[in-house]
Amino acid sequence: MSDREQHKKEMQALKAEQKRKTADAQDPGRGLVLVHTGDGKGKSSSAFGVIIRALGWGHRVGVVQFIKGNWVTGEKQFFNKLPDQVDWFTMGEGFTWETQDRERDVAAAEAAFAKASEMIKSGDYDLVVLDEINIALGYDYLSEETVLDGLKARSDRTSVVLTGRGAKPKICDYADLVTEMREIKHPFKAGITAQRGIDF
Amino acid sequence: MSDREQHKKEMQALKAEQKRKTADAQDPGRGLVLVHTGDGKGKSSSAFGVIIRALGWGHRVGVVQFIKGNWVTGEKQFFNKLPDQVDWFTMGEGFTWETQDRERDVAAAEAAFAKASEMIKSGDYDLVVLDEINIALGYDYLSEETVLDGLKARSDRTSVVLTGRGAKPKICDYADLVTEMREIKHPFKAGITAQRGIDF
Repeated sequence: MSDREQHKKEMQALKAEQKRKTADAQDPGRGLVLVHTGDGKGKSSSAFGVIIRALGWGHRVGVVQFIKGNWVTGEKQFFNKLPDQVDWFTMGEGFTWETQDRERDVAAAEAAFAKASEMIKSGDYDLVVLDEINIALGYDYLSEETVLDGLKARSDRTSVVLTGRGAKPKICDYADLVTEMREIKHPFKAGITAQRGIDF
Repeated sequence: MSDREQHKKEMQALKAEQKRKTADAQDPGRGLVLVHTGDGKGKSSSAFGVIIRALGWGHRVGVVQFIKGNWVTGEKQFFNKLPDQVDWFTMGEGFTWETQDRERDVAAAEAAFAKASEMIKSGDYDLVVLDEINIALGYDYLSEETVLDGLKARSDRTSVVLTGRGAKPKICDYADLVTEMREIKHPFKAGITAQRGIDF
């Protein structure tokens, strides 16, 4: 068999396999819960990429940013120009080491999650992103049970993405998809500063 | 020491550590090369999230999609509405198992990379995304050396993101950042179809 015929044969097998996989799969008839975790980069940026896909299909999107506070970021500047399609709430007061006040952090996280829960169950959104909520969970500013209850009460229409390192086991168990971003090589370690338009 | 004082102390230490790290880091004075690889989801969507950050800062962006072909996707529909900020080229003819013709695939990949190289060295872009190029490399449609040479010839202004599973070792060695997306739990495996607005 020539290389060309061999290639064609392999690709036919791959196509058949893909077709079989797709045929077996079912539409869940409800929004999914996705978790982006791990120590690597790309947890939040991947959520913003999912937002872009949703917006491309005319979906309505909500974002609640936990922890990150009022920094000027590229993503915020971009999405703020699309107020009819993206509702954006930033509810932390900066990374937790900025405030150094646990009670204030807990109050901010609870207020953020109250807003998030309202969006998730409202039926007004196709996608709600809870950015860096895993960090708030990691500091025990929010309980796993509170967040799980909020996810379970979601509208059938609504998918939810939770980002941040150290995702909690019960939330991962409940999620439809969990992806770990692993750092193989990181520019900070090579002594490079965070870059505008890439890292924020 | 009270819980509150303890928290404050920990957060002060964290802040000091962060400040030290940031002070040590240098601006590289040139665009970075980032690789998103691994078997998990989020490689392309994370690149689209980086695009959003870049656009938020008014940067100019180019995208060359290898392999994915002419499917209708959310990302393409979204970015096509921003022709002044994003130059988007889709140069495959669908996943390689669609064409089943190796010579045609090689020609398409080479044409795509010729376009990509031109964008990367032109100095016209802050960010160029080579989406799924690692797949084209994995099938030997392109050689590592050709792609490395293209990356090395980039304008100082231009960062490049390469996505796709199975990133080649030499390209990872050259890159500033390599992130592996690992699949912990995947909805396809739980029998759920790809979802519009999330998976494409």
